[in-house]
Amino acid sequence: MTATVYDTLDALGIQLADPVTPAAAFLPWTCAGDLLFLSGHIARKHGRPWTGRLGDTLTTADGAAAARATAIDLLATLHAATGDLATVSRIVKLMVLVNSAPGFTEQHLVANGASELFLEVFGAAGAHARSAFGASQIPFGSCVEIELVAQVTRVRHGQ
Amino acid sequence: MTATVYDTLDALGIQLADPVTPAAAFLPWTCAGDLLFLSGHIARKHGRPWTGRLGDTLTTADGAAAARATAIDLLATLHAATGDLATVSRIVKLMVLVNSAPGFTEQHLVANGASELFLEVFGAAGAHARSAFGASQIPFGSCVEIELVAQVTRVRHGQ
Amino acid sequence: MTATVYDTLDALGIQLADPVTPAAAFLPWTCAGDLLFLSGHIARKHGRPWTGRLGDTLTTADGAAAARATAIDLLATLHAATGDLATVSRIVKLMVLVNSAPGFTEQHLVANGASELFLEVFGAAGAHARSAFGASQIPFGSCVEIELVAQVTRVRHGQ
Repeated sequence: MTATVYDTLDALGIQLADPVTPAAAFLPWTCAGDLLFLSGHIARKHGRPWTGRLGDTLTTADGAAAARATAIDLLATLHAATGDLATVSRIVKLMVLVNSAPGFTEQHLVANGASELFLEVFGAAGAHARSAFGASQIPFGSCVEIELVAQVTRVRHGQ
Repeated sequence: MTATVYDTLDALGIQLADPVTPAAAFLPWTCAGDLLFLSGHIARKHGRPWTGRLGDTLTTADGAAAARATAIDLLATLHAATGDLATVSRIVKLMVLVNSAPGFTEQHLVANGASELFLEVFGAAGAHARSAFGASQIPFGSCVEIELVAQVTRVRHGQ
Repeated sequence: MTATVYDTLDALGIQLADPVTPAAAFLPWTCAGDLLFLSGHIARKHGRPWTGRLGDTLTTADGAAAARATAIDLLATLHAATGDLATVSRIVKLMVLVNSAPGFTEQHLVANGASELFLEVFGAAGAHARSAFGASQIPFGSCVEIELVAQVTRVRHGQ
């Protein structure tokens, strides 16, 4: 089963980078029982904040691509936290914040960029509950931020 | 006890509709242990998104009515997830997003439209923690979105 | 161990006030298993809402001070919920909402005002996951709102 997840990532041409180090006084993830709480990850492009606002400087397709890139960073953090993505028994919940001009109402389509990747990578275990909505701004001017809760069978550090 | 919750709904003249199908790549709810995580439900009127912005096109009373309607849809999802609302041992937490013009500061009064319904329907088990705040926009231009966490004694599908 | 947390608070010159009573139809906290869910607490100054918007009427330093004040109110609620802060085994997660003008992108620095206090007070047990982002508005026009999840070994009321 371990093979499956990483094989899928390979087949999708996705290479997990080193997990992002928070830019401030918090941890990338914590664990309580079998729930893993991942901090809000902002969208990045070429290692820097992926800036812009939906309904203004970015299209819905741009936003979905940014959400997918953020999901890849979340996978890297999940890998770092567990040591093995096969121990992720369930993606429980996403909160997807979209940097939105007042007239932009397609936050759900932006969020699909992340949701669909979790389905591709984990199959049924990747199907999750979700909230998506517009934020008036996001740290560093990033266009998307995603927080994730997963259920796991093992955590590496007991962090 | 089963009778009580549904009797209360009858007494309030509330009929639960079929649960809403998400408009995107996610599930209406997931479960981890005895916690049920409901996706953000947007306010609907006559089966369509209840659009508008508080402090602009909608009054606080309108918003509270929209929040109450959203709570009814959340009850329908809770019923679908559990098969029996009597298995809801606690409404743990609500997150209430209010589509807000910059000058509107009564998100808490809008959210009461949902909170008060859960108290009426479940009594003490309906009392919950809550966050309410202004979103710059909500999918489909809806005026309110509510996410819910409940503690349950049983889940129907093990979803 | 009890002494440590309260001694630290004394050393920081922090006196916990009576916990804030919610201004609406919800509870200051609920518990499910060993997880304590604290409602969104708005920033207060001299007992009244700490109003203003970051990137407009308030500076980042003002916002960080408001976040720190909110963290102190959260500590008061944690104390009320547990009866003893030494029973807080982990600050699991913060959600920090910052009342933000569209051009303000330092929500993470504002949130540090709260995060750093939890680290000072609880040490390693105070290190947490976190999401910070801009809200278009917050109840009562407050500049900051913080929601918290903690893991505890005991709850006073079984609320």
